[in-house]
Amino acid sequence: MIELELVKEAVRLRKARSESFLDFEYLRFSDDFKEIPRGTVLFQDTVIWGYPHIGRIFILEKGLKEQFRNPFWVEEKIDGYNVRILLQKDKVIALSRGGYICPFTTDRVDDFINFKFFEENPDLILCAEVAGPENPYIEESPPFIKEDIRFFVFDVMRKNQAGFLSHTEKMKLIEKYNLPAVTVFGKYTTDDLKTLKELLFQLNTEKREGVVFKEDSPEHRRAKYITSYANLNDIKITALNMLQLPAEYYTNRIMRIVLFMEEEGIKATQHLYSELGKAFIEGLMTAIEQFKKEHRVYRRFSCRFKTKENALALIELLHRTSRHIQVIEKELKKEGDYWRLTFDKVFLNMTGLLGHLLSGGLVFD
Amino acid sequence: MIELELVKEAVRLRKARSESFLDFEYLRFSDDFKEIPRGTVLFQDTVIWGYPHIGRIFILEKGLKEQFRNPFWVEEKIDGYNVRILLQKDKVIALSRGGYICPFTTDRVDDFINFKFFEENPDLILCAEVAGPENPYIEESPPFIKEDIRFFVFDVMRKNQAGFLSHTEKMKLIEKYNLPAVTVFGKYTTDDLKTLKELLFQLNTEKREGVVFKEDSPEHRRAKYITSYANLNDIKITALNMLQLPAEYYTNRIMRIVLFMEEEGIKATQHLYSELGKAFIEGLMTAIEQFKKEHRVYRRFSCRFKTKENALALIELLHRTSRHIQVIEKELKKEGDYWRLTFDKVFLNMTGLLGHLLSGGLVFD
Repeated sequence: MIELELVKEAVRLRKARSESFLDFEYLRFSDDFKEIPRGTVLFQDTVIWGYPHIGRIFILEKGLKEQFRNPFWVEEKIDGYNVRILLQKDKVIALSRGGYICPFTTDRVDDFINFKFFEENPDLILCAEVAGPENPYIEESPPFIKEDIRFFVFDVMRKNQAGFLSHTEKMKLIEKYNLPAVTVFGKYTTDDLKTLKELLFQLNTEKREGVVFKEDSPEHRRAKYITSYANLNDIKITALNMLQLPAEYYTNRIMRIVLFMEEEGIKATQHLYSELGKAFIEGLMTAIEQFKKEHRVYRRFSCRFKTKENALALIELLHRTSRHIQVIEKELKKEGDYWRLTFDKVFLNMTGLLGHLLSGGLVFD
Repeated sequence: MIELELVKEAVRLRKARSESFLDFEYLRFSDDFKEIPRGTVLFQDTVIWGYPHIGRIFILEKGLKEQFRNPFWVEEKIDGYNVRILLQKDKVIALSRGGYICPFTTDRVDDFINFKFFEENPDLILCAEVAGPENPYIEESPPFIKEDIRFFVFDVMRKNQAGFLSHTEKMKLIEKYNLPAVTVFGKYTTDDLKTLKELLFQLNTEKREGVVFKEDSPEHRRAKYITSYANLNDIKITALNMLQLPAEYYTNRIMRIVLFMEEEGIKATQHLYSELGKAFIEGLMTAIEQFKKEHRVYRRFSCRFKTKENALALIELLHRTSRHIQVIEKELKKEGDYWRLTFDKVFLNMTGLLGHLLSGGLVFD
């Protein structure tokens, strides 16, 4: 458990805030605070630790040698959003990375996860990535998911404890309850560099995001490594709304693309140059076109819910938590067994800047 | 003049600092402070006002209509560094934009400017751009300057006064003293949009930076407009040292490229995409190569002086004012009538980051 004094201090410094949502009252750490990671949640009697940051290596060869002392498992990294799923007050709920109860993920979780897992293991938490074209948060989706969403379990935590179950324990549970999980490529050592480079090259070709390395040891060392494709795709997807993200988002990714090429021995070609240039220019062109036609820059989202209440709760959550984004509900209608919610995120910064620039405004820079 | 109380307050807040250089003692405004622009310099009896910021328009059509009420002169904008040249204590000196006495520009000014101007007009200040491949400050140079540097006068100021002489007064002086000056393309109104678009298209093709619009009226409204070429070139030149500049430097320029294309009706082509991608990737590739070979990322500079003392003074100034850059003198030798100084600027941020990444370091982002 976390000491009461620490909690009080965090609340006083506004690093932890009270939340009330879907019949739950809880405290949410909105920032990292001392050893407590952002997204940690306190229910009356239970602590759900935040999912810790995993550092990124830019160079496989030196990076693996520098970070790992023991064999490590290599798992696929899926490009989605991170949730922790748990049983609380007889209800299975999903927490977002930031510690909000997500009405969408909570609504859909039993389409993908066997609830027997929670009945038989009420103290365990599933950490999963949710990805797919019909999610309400991120504009990217792995190309192999053609519709809706999918869940990919990659870790199991225990209530009131930081850290994870071992790989063996996790795999047993995944098998026993037939949980959807990320691909485990195998157990490797730093001597397997050639194989790992080939694996990453292959993932890059298949437009997959990358891998997470997890040391099979009590120290649980971890690191992630992202393909050049994923970095390029990040730029492509977000260029429409370039002002929303810190500019370093882009310079970091360009740096990673170049280091990936360097390591994999990929030669700079006109094709790659033009992919990078296009990623930026097409997104911005789309923003300008949108603005000229509709006086706003936005992205449309659409997702399926089992209950209308959860759809409305998601809209409320997005209204409450979106910064520099206006969320506009477009439609909520019954579609087969589901309710389909369609909404727009209007990017206010980009809309405002284009309004200023296209009407002839002056910029001092 | 500036009120004494204001000066005292600026010094107290460290917005103005004492400088002592080349036998001059003066006060330099290191930041904008109330109505006093950064780079303003106070000698005992004289104020040299800082050169004011000129806002940028992104769209000619709306921008000119929005910014100007009267006809305006259109002058070429040269890609160099801004100096103010004046007579002080019987010596002609050049101040940098930031208000330092520049030993290099001061050393070379009489190769380009007729000093009779200052003898006959001791209260006037020439505002000029200095550009060329052999300058000690900026890595870019207009392609039409093949060696050394050139001066381009674009404004005349008066000591102890903010603001500029009128266009007519300025042109008279330029003619009388045969001063090297920027090209004046003519006097236009907002109705001349078609001609101005053609001019900018032409400048872009010729790899020139852009234009400054200067209203011919007591309000002296001004604005600048930069070609797509210049924005692309900025990225290309600085990518080697991407960490030195704020990341917005890059996102702003990409935005400007797209708005320039949009306005000039330039279609996005594979060629343009690949130019942009290449601008980023080639610079970073060079940085990685440099680091692997020499364990540092740097750019070499070379310039000519008339006196050895001024060359040493420049090195001293660069040592004192460079942030995150290590200046290493490589060679100072007599070459014909000049002293040739060669030095490296080692980009410490980029060198440090590549050191960390290429040795397998972890990054949390």
